Amino acid sequence: MTHSHYALHTDKYQINMLYAHWFHGTHNQRAVFDVFYRKQPFGNGFAVFAGLERLVHYLNELRFKEEEIAYLAEQEEGYDPRFFEELRNFRFTGTLHAMEEGTIVFPNEPLIRVEARVFEAQLIETALLNFVNFQTLIATKAARIKQVAGQDRLLEFGTRRAQEADAAVWGARATYVAGFDATSNMQAGMRFGIPTKGTHAHAWVQNHRTELEAFERFAEALPDQVTLLVDTYDTLKFGVPDAITVGLKMKEKGKTLKGIRLDSGDLTYLSIQARRMLDEAGLTETRITASNDLDENTIFEIKAQGARIDIWGVGTQLITGGSQPALGGVYKLVAREENGELVPTIKISGNPEKITNPGIKDVYRIISRKTGRAEGDYITLHGDEDVPHGKPIRLFNPTHTFIQKTVSDYEAVPLLKPIYVEGKQVYELPTLDRIRELHREQMSWFWPEYLRRLNPEVYPVDLSQKAWDMKMDLIRSHLEPKE
Amino acid sequence: MTHSHYALHTDKYQINMLYAHWFHGTHNQRAVFDVFYRKQPFGNGFAVFAGLERLVHYLNELRFKEEEIAYLAEQEEGYDPRFFEELRNFRFTGTLHAMEEGTIVFPNEPLIRVEARVFEAQLIETALLNFVNFQTLIATKAARIKQVAGQDRLLEFGTRRAQEADAAVWGARATYVAGFDATSNMQAGMRFGIPTKGTHAHAWVQNHRTELEAFERFAEALPDQVTLLVDTYDTLKFGVPDAITVGLKMKEKGKTLKGIRLDSGDLTYLSIQARRMLDEAGLTETRITASNDLDENTIFEIKAQGARIDIWGVGTQLITGGSQPALGGVYKLVAREENGELVPTIKISGNPEKITNPGIKDVYRIISRKTGRAEGDYITLHGDEDVPHGKPIRLFNPTHTFIQKTVSDYEAVPLLKPIYVEGKQVYELPTLDRIRELHREQMSWFWPEYLRRLNPEVYPVDLSQKAWDMKMDLIRSHLEPKE
Repeated sequence: MTHSHYALHTDKYQINMLYAHWFHGTHNQRAVFDVFYRKQPFGNGFAVFAGLERLVHYLNELRFKEEEIAYLAEQEEGYDPRFFEELRNFRFTGTLHAMEEGTIVFPNEPLIRVEARVFEAQLIETALLNFVNFQTLIATKAARIKQVAGQDRLLEFGTRRAQEADAAVWGARATYVAGFDATSNMQAGMRFGIPTKGTHAHAWVQNHRTELEAFERFAEALPDQVTLLVDTYDTLKFGVPDAITVGLKMKEKGKTLKGIRLDSGDLTYLSIQARRMLDEAGLTETRITASNDLDENTIFEIKAQGARIDIWGVGTQLITGGSQPALGGVYKLVAREENGELVPTIKISGNPEKITNPGIKDVYRIISRKTGRAEGDYITLHGDEDVPHGKPIRLFNPTHTFIQKTVSDYEAVPLLKPIYVEGKQVYELPTLDRIRELHREQMSWFWPEYLRRLNPEVYPVDLSQKAWDMKMDLIRSHLEPKE
Repeated sequence: MTHSHYALHTDKYQINMLYAHWFHGTHNQRAVFDVFYRKQPFGNGFAVFAGLERLVHYLNELRFKEEEIAYLAEQEEGYDPRFFEELRNFRFTGTLHAMEEGTIVFPNEPLIRVEARVFEAQLIETALLNFVNFQTLIATKAARIKQVAGQDRLLEFGTRRAQEADAAVWGARATYVAGFDATSNMQAGMRFGIPTKGTHAHAWVQNHRTELEAFERFAEALPDQVTLLVDTYDTLKFGVPDAITVGLKMKEKGKTLKGIRLDSGDLTYLSIQARRMLDEAGLTETRITASNDLDENTIFEIKAQGARIDIWGVGTQLITGGSQPALGGVYKLVAREENGELVPTIKISGNPEKITNPGIKDVYRIISRKTGRAEGDYITLHGDEDVPHGKPIRLFNPTHTFIQKTVSDYEAVPLLKPIYVEGKQVYELPTLDRIRELHREQMSWFWPEYLRRLNPEVYPVDLSQKAWDMKMDLIRSHLEPKE
C-alpha cells in the first residue's frame, strides 16, 4: 500500500490554482494555511486528533509521475507544457506544525499549520483534509464509546461496512489510538501491530448438520481461542446450551471456553440469562461478547440496564461515524507573502463563526498548577507575542467576549509541534503504543464535565488580545470602503 | 493502486473459519453464499448496484504473500504451519454471478451469488461487502440527487470529506455510474476516464491584494475555463460585480466567462440576484454553480423556490451517504455440500425479516409486454424450476402472502449474470459509459412511483411458490424438535 501515487489525490481546482500561480510567476510565494474544524462531531465535548502518520508518509513520497503528467496534458484547460516541468520537480519543501496524534482538540484552533510555497501548500490541501477529517472523526467516535465502556474490552468489527478499503484500515488504527483493544481487520493488524480478534460467522454453524457439531469442530481446531456465536437458530434454547456442552467438554480436557457471542435480540436480557446459565454450569470464566449495530448510546443503555457483557464488538456506527459521517475540517489561508513579508489574511462571511482567525498562530494548553487540569486553550500570534510564561493571562471567548476569566498559576503547553522544517522531517513518528499513552495522558488533563458524552461543558478556546485585535482590524479593513 | 495486497483485507474470523475447515478437511466442500441487503437506504425506493469492477480486480489478483503468511504465523491462535501451504496455493476458483453495475436493485434479492470451495467463499466475504456496500450506497445517493436535479449538471466535490482515499476515488466512480457529470477528484478522472471539473478556492482570492485582481489573474491564466468563486468577502456587494467586470473584459477579447460559483449564504436569493446582475450586464452565457453542504433535499427545496442555479457541486452528503453512511449488505450461506450434493441451508432469527432465503436462486425482472414497465422481481430456485417463459406467474409478497397479483404477458429478464465460471472470468467488464447507459435504460423500466425520493411505492420482490415452500419447510425443520 504505497503512497507514491497520490499526487493526483487532489481536486482539480488545486491544479488550476497551481497553474494560475505558475502562469503569473507567483508560485514560489510563501503562504500559511491553518487546518481546523468549526463544530464538535456527535455533540461531543472534544475531538481526538489523528491522521498525522498518514500525512507524513504522503508528504515524504509526494511526486508527480509521468503518467499523471500525461493525464494533465489531456485536460480541457490546455495547460502550458512548461508548467509540467515545475510539477516534475515537485517536492514538499515546506514547514509544517501539527498536533500529535491522540491529542484532545477543540473547534477553531489550528490542528495543523502549513507554511510553504503556495504551489505546494495548495496541492496538499485535499489529501490532507481527506486523511485528517476521517481519522479524527473515527478516533473521536471511538473515544466516546471508550467513555461509556469503562473497563470493558472494545473490539473494532467494522470492515464490511466501512467506506471502502482505506477507511477500514486507517479507521481501525484511529479506534486503537482512542482506546479500543483490538480490531478484526487483519490488514490493520499487520500494518500497525494492532491486536486482532475474531470469532466465527453464522455460516460456520449453518455449514454443519447441527449447531453442536459446528461448535465442537470449532473448539477442536482452535482450542485456545474459542468464542462461539450462539444466535444462529435460537440463543437461549439452542445456542447457549450447545456452547455449554462444548465448554464442559473443553473443561474436562483442561481447556477453557473463552467466550460466547450474542449478535441479535435483546442483548441485556440475553446476556443476563446466558451469564446465569454459564455460571450454573460452572463456566464462570467464559466471557460474553456482544455485537449488533452498537454505538455509545446503546452500550450506555444496555450497561445501565444491568447487562452482563464483558466485550463489545462495534462495527458500522464506529467505522463510519454513524449519525455524523464527516468532520468538517477546513484548510484556510491565514497569511500570504507580500513584498517578501508574510502578511495576515482573512476570509469574511455573513456567518460570524465562518470568519477565519488571521495570522500565523501558536496554540497553548493552559494547565493549572493547582489542579493539574486544563483551564483553556490559548491562541497567540507567532513571534509577535511572548510565550505565556506564568504571567496572568486573560482568557476571553472570541465571539462572546464578555465570557472571560484570568488565570495566573499555570503551565502553558505548546500543542503545535514542528513536523517538517523546510522540507526536512524533524519529527520522529511515535509508536502506536506511545500515541495511545499520550492520548490517555491528555484525557487525564480534563475535568469530566468536558468529556461527558451528553451535553458536555464547552471548553474555552480563546484568542490572545493581540490575535483578537488583529482579526477585528482586518474585518474592518475589508468591509469598509477603501477609497 | 494495486489490488494484490488484499488477501488480509478480511476479518480474523474468516481466517479462523478457513483454519477450522482446513483442520477438519472440509475446506474443499462447496458452499453457496448470497449477497443482499434488507432495507432501502435513505428511505429510497431502489438502490443502484455498484462495486463489481472493484470486486473482479480483487478476485483476479487475490494471493497470499509471504509477509502475510509470516504475520499469520505470529497469531495467538497458533495455526498449524501446514495450513499456510494451503494459503500459498490460494486462487479464486469459484463460480460467481452478479448483477451488472448500474442495475436497479431491491432488498432481499441476491445481488451476487458465490459458489465456491468454502475456503474461498469465506475469505472473500469481508472485502466483497466492503466494496459493494459502499459503492452501492453512494451510487444510490447519487441517483436520488440526479432525480431531483433533472437536466441540471451535477459535479461530485466530496474528496476532502470522503472517508479516506479509496472512498473518494471509488465513490466518485459510483456517482458517475448513477448520472453525475463530473468529479473534482483527479485520480478518479485519470483511473476511470471521468470528466474532471474545478473552479478555485477562497485562498486564491485571499492570496491577492483585491478580489478583482484575483479574478483577473485567474481569467488570464485559464481563459477558456473560468468559473469565479464570488463569496470570499460579500457575494452581491463585491463578488458578483467583480466577476462581471472580468466577464465584460473577457467578452471584449472574444472570451466567455463560463461561470460563477456561490458557496455560502441563501443560494436561492443569491442565485436569483446574481442571474439578474449577470443578465443585465449582458453575460447571459455565464452559468451559476452552487455548492455548500447540498443534498437531494436542499436541492429540491432550492429549485422549488425558483433558484437560478445551473450546476450543483455536491460534496459531503454525497460522498459519505450523509444521514446513512452504510448499506447493510450481508453475505449469507444458502447452500452447503453434504455427501457431494448442495443442500439448502437457512439462518433463523427472532426477527422475521432476518430469516434468510435458502437455496441457490435466480432473479428475474418481470417486464410487462404491454407497458414495457417492471411488474416485480421474481426469485426462483436455480435448476429446480422452469425459467418463467410467458406462462402466468403469481407474484406474492413473501412476508405478507395475501398481497399478490398474477402476471401473464411479460418478459422475464434474468438479472444475475455469470461473472466467473470455475475461476475463469467469463464476463467482460463494460466501459463506464456502457454502465451509465445500462443504468439509464434500467431507470426507464420503472414507474415513477417506485423512483420518487419521498415515500416511494414498494416494488414487489417475490419468491416463487417453490422457493417459498422450501423456506417454510426449512424453518419448520429447525424449530421443531428433531428426536
